Amino acid sequence: MLCRLSRSIRSHRTPAGAHSDRRFSAAPCCANQEPRDYSLPNPTWSPDTKRLYEELSRDQSWMRISSYNTNFHQEGISLEADRKTRLFTRNLDQDGVGFEYCMFYNEAEKRTICIFQPGPYTEGPRGYAHGGCIAAIIDETTATGILLSCRRSVTANLNINYRNPIPLGSTVILDSRVEKVDGRKVYSSCRVRSHDDSVVYNEATALFITSKLEELKAKL
Amino acid sequence: MLCRLSRSIRSHRTPAGAHSDRRFSAAPCCANQEPRDYSLPNPTWSPDTKRLYEELSRDQSWMRISSYNTNFHQEGISLEADRKTRLFTRNLDQDGVGFEYCMFYNEAEKRTICIFQPGPYTEGPRGYAHGGCIAAIIDETTATGILLSCRRSVTANLNINYRNPIPLGSTVILDSRVEKVDGRKVYSSCRVRSHDDSVVYNEATALFITSKLEELKAKL
Repeated sequence: MLCRLSRSIRSHRTPAGAHSDRRFSAAPCCANQEPRDYSLPNPTWSPDTKRLYEELSRDQSWMRISSYNTNFHQEGISLEADRKTRLFTRNLDQDGVGFEYCMFYNEAEKRTICIFQPGPYTEGPRGYAHGGCIAAIIDETTATGILLSCRRSVTANLNINYRNPIPLGSTVILDSRVEKVDGRKVYSSCRVRSHDDSVVYNEATALFITSKLEELKAKL
Repeated sequence: MLCRLSRSIRSHRTPAGAHSDRRFSAAPCCANQEPRDYSLPNPTWSPDTKRLYEELSRDQSWMRISSYNTNFHQEGISLEADRKTRLFTRNLDQDGVGFEYCMFYNEAEKRTICIFQPGPYTEGPRGYAHGGCIAAIIDETTATGILLSCRRSVTANLNINYRNPIPLGSTVILDSRVEKVDGRKVYSSCRVRSHDDSVVYNEATALFITSKLEELKAKL
Protein backbone atom coordinates (compact mmCIF):
# COMPACT_ATOMS: atom_id res chain seq x y z
CA MET A 1 0.00 0.00 0.00
CA LEU A 2 1.19 3.46 -0.79
CA CYS A 3 1.37 5.65 2.25
CA ARG A 4 -0.91 8.64 2.71
CA LEU A 5 1.68 11.25 1.82
CA SER A 6 2.64 9.61 -1.40
CA ARG A 7 -0.90 9.37 -2.77
CA SER A 8 -0.87 12.99 -3.82
CA ILE A 9 1.81 12.43 -6.44
CA ARG A 10 0.17 9.36 -8.00
CA SER A 11 -1.62 10.30 -11.16
CA HIS A 12 -4.87 8.85 -12.33
CA ARG A 13 -4.15 6.51 -15.23
CA THR A 14 -3.94 8.57 -18.42
CA PRO A 15 -4.53 6.66 -21.65
CA ALA A 16 -1.61 7.17 -24.01
CA GLY A 17 -2.38 10.12 -26.26
CA ALA A 18 -5.20 11.49 -24.10
CA HIS A 19 -3.34 14.46 -22.67
CA SER A 20 -4.50 17.80 -21.43
CA ASP A 21 -4.32 20.93 -23.55
CA ARG A 22 -1.72 22.30 -21.15
CA ARG A 23 0.88 19.79 -22.26
CA PHE A 24 2.55 22.10 -24.77
CA SER A 25 2.80 25.15 -22.49
CA ALA A 26 6.36 26.31 -22.03
CA ALA A 27 5.52 28.83 -19.32
CA PRO A 28 6.07 27.88 -15.68
CA CYS A 29 2.97 27.70 -13.52
CA CYS A 30 2.15 30.70 -11.38
CA ALA A 31 -0.34 31.66 -8.69
CA ASN A 32 -3.23 32.09 -11.16
CA GLN A 33 -2.70 28.97 -13.23
CA GLU A 34 -3.38 25.34 -12.61
CA PRO A 35 -0.02 23.67 -11.98
CA ARG A 36 1.47 21.95 -14.98
CA ASP A 37 2.13 18.23 -14.88
CA TYR A 38 5.52 17.86 -16.56
CA SER A 39 5.24 14.08 -16.78
CA LEU A 40 2.99 14.43 -19.84
CA PRO A 41 4.53 14.47 -23.34
CA ASN A 42 5.53 17.70 -25.06
CA PRO A 43 6.71 18.28 -28.65
CA THR A 44 10.39 18.18 -27.68
CA TRP A 45 10.18 14.52 -26.73
CA SER A 46 11.92 12.27 -29.24
CA PRO A 47 10.09 9.35 -30.91
CA ASP A 48 11.93 6.95 -28.57
CA THR A 49 10.91 8.91 -25.47
CA LYS A 50 7.27 9.03 -26.63
CA ARG A 51 7.24 5.35 -27.55
CA LEU A 52 8.47 4.28 -24.11
CA TYR A 53 6.00 6.63 -22.43
CA GLU A 54 3.14 5.10 -24.40
CA GLU A 55 4.27 1.52 -23.76
CA LEU A 56 4.42 2.06 -20.01
CA SER A 57 1.14 4.01 -20.01
CA ARG A 58 -0.60 0.99 -21.57
CA ASP A 59 0.92 -1.48 -19.10
CA GLN A 60 -1.46 -1.90 -16.14
CA SER A 61 1.37 -2.89 -13.80
CA TRP A 62 2.94 0.57 -14.09
CA MET A 63 1.52 3.80 -12.69
CA ARG A 64 2.53 7.15 -14.16
CA ILE A 65 3.77 9.59 -11.52
CA SER A 66 2.66 13.19 -11.86
CA SER A 67 5.51 15.69 -11.68
CA TYR A 68 5.49 19.42 -10.98
CA ASN A 69 8.22 22.02 -10.65
CA THR A 70 8.09 21.72 -6.87
CA ASN A 71 7.86 18.88 -4.37
CA PHE A 72 5.67 20.86 -1.97
CA HIS A 73 2.64 18.67 -2.73
CA GLN A 74 4.48 15.83 -1.02
CA GLU A 75 4.11 17.81 2.20
CA GLY A 76 0.46 18.61 1.65
CA ILE A 77 1.32 22.24 0.74
CA SER A 78 -0.54 23.91 -2.10
CA LEU A 79 1.41 23.96 -5.35
CA GLU A 80 0.56 27.64 -5.67
CA ALA A 81 2.16 28.59 -2.34
CA ASP A 82 5.56 30.27 -2.23
CA ARG A 83 6.51 30.13 -5.92
CA LYS A 84 9.95 31.60 -5.36
CA THR A 85 11.60 28.20 -5.49
CA ARG A 86 11.67 25.49 -8.14
CA LEU A 87 12.52 21.83 -8.08
CA PHE A 88 16.08 21.55 -9.40
CA THR A 89 15.18 19.04 -12.11
CA ARG A 90 12.26 21.20 -13.35
CA ASN A 91 13.83 24.66 -13.17
CA LEU A 92 14.02 25.75 -16.83
CA ASP A 93 11.23 27.65 -18.59
CA GLN A 94 11.86 26.21 -22.03
CA ASP A 95 10.87 22.65 -22.88
CA GLY A 96 13.47 20.29 -24.25
CA VAL A 97 16.66 22.06 -23.22
CA GLY A 98 17.09 20.61 -19.73
CA PHE A 99 15.66 17.57 -17.98
CA GLU A 100 12.81 15.95 -19.89
CA TYR A 101 11.53 12.95 -18.00
CA CYS A 102 8.57 10.99 -16.75
CA MET A 103 8.41 8.29 -14.13
CA PHE A 104 6.35 5.14 -13.66
CA TYR A 105 6.03 3.08 -10.49
CA ASN A 106 5.45 -0.65 -10.14
CA GLU A 107 4.08 -1.29 -6.68
CA ALA A 108 4.44 -5.09 -6.72
CA GLU A 109 8.11 -4.90 -7.60
CA LYS A 110 8.91 -1.66 -5.73
CA ARG A 111 10.48 -0.46 -8.95
CA THR A 112 10.57 2.99 -10.48
CA ILE A 113 11.28 3.55 -14.16
CA CYS A 114 12.31 6.99 -15.37
CA ILE A 115 12.35 7.75 -19.09
CA PHE A 116 14.91 10.52 -19.40
CA GLN A 117 16.02 12.75 -22.26
CA PRO A 118 18.86 15.17 -21.34
CA GLY A 119 18.69 18.39 -23.36
CA PRO A 120 21.45 20.65 -24.70
CA TYR A 121 21.61 22.69 -21.47
CA THR A 122 22.74 19.66 -19.44
CA GLU A 123 26.14 19.45 -21.07
CA GLY A 124 29.33 18.33 -19.36
CA PRO A 125 31.83 16.78 -21.78
CA ARG A 126 31.19 18.13 -25.28
CA GLY A 127 28.00 16.51 -26.64
CA TYR A 128 27.31 14.50 -23.49
CA ALA A 129 25.33 14.92 -20.29
CA HIS A 130 27.14 16.34 -17.24
CA GLY A 131 27.97 13.83 -14.51
CA GLY A 132 26.03 15.99 -12.06
CA CYS A 133 22.96 16.00 -14.28
CA ILE A 134 23.03 12.20 -14.30
CA ALA A 135 23.46 12.16 -10.52
CA ALA A 136 20.45 14.47 -10.19
CA ILE A 137 18.08 12.29 -12.19
CA ILE A 138 19.31 9.18 -10.36
CA ASP A 139 18.69 10.94 -7.03
CA GLU A 140 15.23 12.08 -8.12
CA THR A 141 14.25 8.63 -9.42
CA THR A 142 15.40 6.70 -6.37
CA ALA A 143 13.85 9.25 -3.98
CA THR A 144 10.51 8.99 -5.82
CA GLY A 145 10.58 5.20 -5.53
CA ILE A 146 11.23 5.41 -1.80
CA LEU A 147 8.48 7.97 -1.33
CA LEU A 148 6.01 5.65 -3.03
CA SER A 149 7.11 2.43 -1.35
CA CYS A 150 7.86 3.80 2.12
CA ARG A 151 7.68 7.50 2.88
CA ARG A 152 9.46 10.81 2.41
CA SER A 153 13.22 10.64 2.83
CA VAL A 154 16.48 12.48 2.40
CA THR A 155 19.58 11.31 0.56
CA ALA A 156 22.37 10.01 2.82
CA ASN A 157 24.66 8.46 0.20
CA LEU A 158 24.89 8.31 -3.57
CA ASN A 159 27.49 6.04 -5.19
CA ILE A 160 27.49 6.24 -8.97
CA ASN A 161 29.62 4.42 -11.51
CA TYR A 162 29.84 6.10 -14.90
CA ARG A 163 30.35 3.35 -17.50
CA ASN A 164 29.64 5.26 -20.71
CA PRO A 165 28.80 8.89 -21.50
CA ILE A 166 25.15 9.73 -22.27
CA PRO A 167 24.71 11.63 -25.57
CA LEU A 168 22.66 14.83 -25.32
CA GLY A 169 19.18 14.33 -26.77
CA SER A 170 19.23 10.56 -26.42
CA THR A 171 16.56 8.60 -24.58
CA VAL A 172 17.71 6.63 -21.58
CA ILE A 173 15.94 4.45 -19.05
CA LEU A 174 16.60 4.60 -15.33
CA ASP A 175 15.48 1.46 -13.53
CA SER A 176 15.47 1.84 -9.76
CA ARG A 177 14.46 -0.60 -7.08
CA VAL A 178 14.15 -0.52 -3.30
CA GLU A 179 16.56 -3.26 -2.23
CA LYS A 180 16.36 -3.24 1.57
CA VAL A 181 14.64 -1.42 4.40
CA ASP A 182 16.39 -1.37 7.77
CA GLY A 183 14.52 0.85 10.20
CA ARG A 184 14.69 4.35 8.75
CA LYS A 185 17.46 3.35 6.32
CA VAL A 186 16.34 2.47 2.80
CA TYR A 187 18.81 1.03 0.30
CA SER A 188 18.09 1.41 -3.40
CA SER A 189 19.79 0.57 -6.65
CA CYS A 190 19.55 2.28 -10.00
CA ARG A 191 20.73 1.23 -13.45
CA VAL A 192 20.81 3.62 -16.40
CA ARG A 193 20.75 2.17 -19.90
CA SER A 194 20.00 3.22 -23.45
CA HIS A 195 16.40 3.01 -24.69
CA ASP A 196 17.27 -0.08 -26.77
CA ASP A 197 19.18 -1.80 -23.95
CA SER A 198 22.40 -1.79 -25.98
CA VAL A 199 24.47 0.41 -23.64
CA VAL A 200 24.77 0.54 -19.86
CA TYR A 201 25.54 4.10 -18.84
CA ASN A 202 25.46 4.04 -15.05
CA GLU A 203 25.10 1.74 -12.10
CA ALA A 204 24.36 3.32 -8.77
CA THR A 205 23.42 2.59 -5.19
CA ALA A 206 21.69 5.01 -2.87
CA LEU A 207 20.99 5.19 0.83
CA PHE A 208 18.10 7.29 2.04
CA ILE A 209 16.93 8.09 5.56
CA THR A 210 13.17 8.28 5.86
CA SER A 211 11.49 10.98 7.89
CA LYS A 212 10.39 10.13 11.41
CA LEU A 213 6.69 9.30 11.52
CA GLU A 214 6.04 11.94 14.16
CA GLU A 215 7.63 14.60 11.91
CA LEU A 216 5.33 13.62 9.08
CA LYS A 217 2.23 13.56 11.27
CA ALA A 218 3.03 17.04 12.57
CA LYS A 219 2.86 18.36 9.01
CA LEU A 220 -0.50 16.75 8.15
CA MET B 1 53.24 23.05 -14.15
CA LEU B 2 49.80 23.35 -15.60
CA CYS B 3 49.42 21.46 -18.83
CA ARG B 4 48.86 23.19 -22.16
CA LEU B 5 45.13 22.48 -22.35
CA SER B 6 44.42 23.78 -18.91
CA ARG B 7 46.12 27.14 -19.42
CA SER B 8 43.15 28.53 -21.29
CA ILE B 9 40.86 28.40 -18.27
CA ARG B 10 43.31 30.06 -15.89
CA SER B 11 42.45 33.68 -15.41
CA HIS B 12 44.91 36.49 -15.07
CA ARG B 13 44.93 37.62 -11.47
CA THR B 14 42.11 40.09 -10.96
CA PRO B 15 42.39 42.38 -7.94
CA ALA B 16 39.30 42.11 -5.76
CA GLY B 17 36.83 44.76 -6.83
CA ALA B 18 38.45 45.45 -10.21
CA HIS B 19 35.89 43.69 -12.34
CA SER B 20 34.77 44.25 -15.89
CA ASP B 21 31.57 46.10 -16.72
CA ARG B 22 30.11 42.87 -17.99
CA ARG B 23 29.87 41.40 -14.52
CA PHE B 24 26.25 42.38 -13.94
CA SER B 25 24.89 41.20 -17.28
CA ALA B 26 22.15 38.61 -16.90
CA ALA B 27 21.99 37.76 -20.60
CA PRO B 28 23.82 34.67 -21.87
CA CYS B 29 26.66 35.30 -24.28
CA CYS B 30 25.94 34.88 -27.96
CA ALA B 31 27.86 34.90 -31.22
CA ASN B 32 28.23 38.70 -31.29
CA GLN B 33 29.26 39.24 -27.68
CA GLU B 34 32.42 38.64 -25.78
CA PRO B 35 31.85 35.58 -23.60
CA ARG B 36 30.95 36.33 -20.01
CA ASP B 37 33.18 35.13 -17.22
CA TYR B 38 30.76 33.87 -14.58
CA SER B 39 33.46 33.55 -11.93
CA LEU B 40 33.28 37.31 -11.31
CA PRO B 41 30.92 38.69 -8.64
CA ASN B 42 27.37 39.77 -9.47
CA PRO B 43 24.80 41.56 -7.27
CA THR B 44 23.09 38.32 -6.26
CA TRP B 45 26.15 37.15 -4.35
CA SER B 46 25.65 37.29 -0.61
CA PRO B 47 28.07 39.20 1.66
CA ASP B 48 29.59 35.86 2.72
CA THR B 49 30.12 34.76 -0.88
CA LYS B 50 31.71 38.11 -1.78
CA ARG B 51 33.90 38.12 1.33
CA LEU B 52 35.32 34.67 0.54
CA TYR B 53 35.85 35.64 -3.10
CA GLU B 54 37.80 38.72 -2.04
CA GLU B 55 39.87 36.84 0.53
CA LEU B 56 40.96 34.22 -1.99
CA SER B 57 41.54 36.85 -4.69
CA ARG B 58 44.01 38.60 -2.37
CA ASP B 59 45.85 35.38 -1.48
CA GLN B 60 48.74 34.89 -3.91
CA SER B 61 48.72 31.12 -3.44
CA TRP B 62 45.28 30.85 -5.02
CA MET B 63 44.45 31.43 -8.70
CA ARG B 64 40.91 32.36 -9.75
CA ILE B 65 39.58 30.09 -12.50
CA SER B 66 37.60 31.74 -15.27
CA SER B 67 34.25 30.09 -15.93
CA TYR B 68 31.95 30.28 -18.96
CA ASN B 69 28.67 28.62 -19.83
CA THR B 70 30.51 26.02 -21.90
CA ASN B 71 33.63 23.92 -21.49
CA PHE B 72 34.54 24.14 -25.19
CA HIS B 73 37.53 26.37 -24.46
CA GLN B 74 39.13 23.39 -22.73
CA GLU B 75 39.29 21.75 -26.14
CA GLY B 76 40.66 24.81 -27.87
CA ILE B 77 37.28 25.51 -29.52
CA SER B 78 36.03 29.08 -29.76
CA LEU B 79 33.51 29.99 -27.08
CA GLU B 80 31.33 31.46 -29.81
CA ALA B 81 31.11 28.21 -31.77
CA ASP B 82 27.99 26.06 -31.62
CA ARG B 83 26.01 27.95 -28.98
CA LYS B 84 23.16 25.45 -28.90
CA THR B 85 24.51 23.79 -25.79
CA ARG B 86 25.27 25.11 -22.30
CA LEU B 87 27.33 23.82 -19.43
CA PHE B 88 24.88 22.22 -17.00
CA THR B 89 26.04 24.29 -14.03
CA ARG B 90 25.76 27.57 -16.00
CA ASN B 91 22.50 26.98 -17.87
CA LEU B 92 20.12 29.58 -16.40
CA ASP B 93 19.71 33.08 -17.87
CA GLN B 94 18.95 34.78 -14.58
CA ASP B 95 21.65 35.43 -12.01
CA GLY B 96 21.19 34.16 -8.48
CA VAL B 97 18.49 31.54 -9.01
CA GLY B 98 20.69 28.56 -9.87
CA PHE B 99 24.36 27.80 -9.37
CA GLU B 100 26.39 30.81 -8.29
CA TYR B 101 30.02 29.83 -7.83
CA CYS B 102 33.62 30.67 -8.41
CA MET B 103 36.68 28.47 -8.13
CA PHE B 104 40.28 29.00 -7.07
CA TYR B 105 43.20 26.65 -7.62
CA ASN B 106 46.27 26.14 -5.47
CA GLU B 107 48.93 24.54 -7.63
CA ALA B 108 51.36 23.64 -4.82
CA GLU B 109 48.67 21.75 -2.91
CA LYS B 110 46.72 20.46 -5.93
CA ARG B 111 43.64 21.85 -4.22
CA THR B 112 40.57 23.47 -5.70
CA ILE B 113 38.26 25.64 -3.64
CA CYS B 114 34.77 26.40 -4.90
CA ILE B 115 32.68 29.09 -3.23
CA PHE B 116 29.11 28.04 -3.93
CA GLN B 117 25.74 29.66 -3.34
CA PRO B 118 22.76 27.49 -4.40
CA GLY B 119 19.79 29.59 -5.53
CA PRO B 120 16.04 29.01 -5.19
CA TYR B 121 15.85 27.00 -8.44
CA THR B 122 18.11 24.28 -7.05
CA GLU B 123 15.58 23.01 -4.56
CA GLY B 124 15.18 19.40 -3.46
CA PRO B 125 13.78 19.08 0.06
CA ARG B 126 11.79 22.20 0.91
CA GLY B 127 14.23 25.06 1.53
CA TYR B 128 17.33 23.00 0.80
CA ALA B 129 19.53 22.21 -2.19
CA HIS B 130 18.74 19.10 -4.23
CA GLY B 131 21.10 16.15 -3.73
CA GLY B 132 21.75 16.17 -7.47
CA CYS B 133 22.66 19.87 -7.44
CA ILE B 134 25.24 19.14 -4.75
CA ALA B 135 26.56 16.20 -6.77
CA ALA B 136 26.87 18.47 -9.81
CA ILE B 137 28.98 21.13 -8.09
CA ILE B 138 31.15 18.43 -6.49
CA ASP B 139 31.66 16.86 -9.92
CA GLU B 140 32.48 20.22 -11.51
CA THR B 141 34.91 21.20 -8.74
CA THR B 142 36.82 17.91 -8.70
CA ALA B 143 36.95 17.78 -12.53
CA THR B 144 38.35 21.33 -12.64
CA GLY B 145 41.06 20.41 -10.15
CA ILE B 146 42.05 17.39 -12.22
CA LEU B 147 42.09 19.42 -15.42
CA LEU B 148 44.47 21.91 -13.82
CA SER B 149 46.75 19.40 -12.11
CA CYS B 150 46.77 16.71 -14.79
CA ARG B 151 44.62 16.97 -17.90
CA ARG B 152 41.07 16.64 -19.19
CA SER B 153 39.12 13.72 -17.76
CA VAL B 154 35.74 12.08 -17.45
CA THR B 155 33.98 11.01 -14.28
CA ALA B 156 34.17 7.27 -13.54
CA ASN B 157 32.82 7.24 -9.98
CA LEU B 158 31.24 9.67 -7.56
CA ASN B 159 30.61 8.59 -3.97
CA ILE B 160 28.91 11.26 -1.89
CA ASN B 161 27.87 11.25 1.74
CA TYR B 162 25.20 13.76 2.65
CA ARG B 163 25.74 14.73 6.30
CA ASN B 164 23.52 17.80 6.55
CA PRO B 165 21.17 19.58 4.14
CA ILE B 166 22.43 22.80 2.52
CA PRO B 167 20.02 25.74 2.95
CA LEU B 168 19.11 27.55 -0.27
CA GLY B 169 20.92 30.89 -0.50
CA SER B 170 23.65 29.95 1.94
CA THR B 171 27.34 30.16 1.14
CA VAL B 172 29.27 26.93 1.22
CA ILE B 173 32.87 25.99 0.53
CA LEU B 174 33.90 22.96 -1.50
CA ASP B 175 37.47 21.92 -0.83
CA SER B 176 38.77 19.36 -3.31
CA ARG B 177 42.17 17.76 -3.59
CA VAL B 178 43.83 15.35 -5.99
CA GLU B 179 44.74 12.44 -3.73
CA LYS B 180 46.41 9.93 -6.04
CA VAL B 181 47.30 9.47 -9.69
CA ASP B 182 47.62 5.92 -10.98
CA GLY B 183 48.19 5.91 -14.73
CA ARG B 184 45.06 7.43 -16.26
CA LYS B 185 43.13 7.04 -12.98
CA VAL B 186 42.97 10.11 -10.76
CA TYR B 187 41.48 9.88 -7.27
CA SER B 188 40.11 13.03 -5.66
CA SER B 189 38.36 13.97 -2.47
CA CYS B 190 35.94 16.79 -1.79
CA ARG B 191 34.55 18.18 1.45
CA VAL B 192 31.65 20.62 1.55
CA ARG B 193 31.26 22.84 4.60
CA SER B 194 29.51 26.02 5.63
CA HIS B 195 31.28 29.35 5.03
CA ASP B 196 32.04 29.65 8.75
CA ASP B 197 33.27 26.05 9.09
CA SER B 198 30.52 25.23 11.60
CA VAL B 199 28.72 22.56 9.54
CA VAL B 200 30.02 19.74 7.35
CA TYR B 201 27.51 19.13 4.59
CA ASN B 202 29.16 16.53 2.38
CA GLU B 203 32.16 14.30 2.10
CA ALA B 204 32.88 12.78 -1.26
CA THR B 205 35.41 10.80 -3.23
CA ALA B 206 35.70 10.80 -6.99
CA LEU B 207 37.52 8.75 -9.58
CA PHE B 208 38.25 10.28 -12.95
CA ILE B 209 39.84 8.77 -16.05
CA THR B 210 42.05 11.21 -17.91
CA SER B 211 41.98 11.44 -21.69
CA LYS B 212 44.66 9.58 -23.62
CA LEU B 213 47.45 11.92 -24.66
CA GLU B 214 47.06 10.96 -28.31
CA GLU B 215 43.34 11.92 -28.17
CA LEU B 216 44.22 15.31 -26.80
CA LYS B 217 46.97 15.89 -29.36
CA ALA B 218 44.56 15.03 -32.17
CA LYS B 219 42.33 17.92 -31.08
CA LEU B 220 45.09 20.50 -30.90
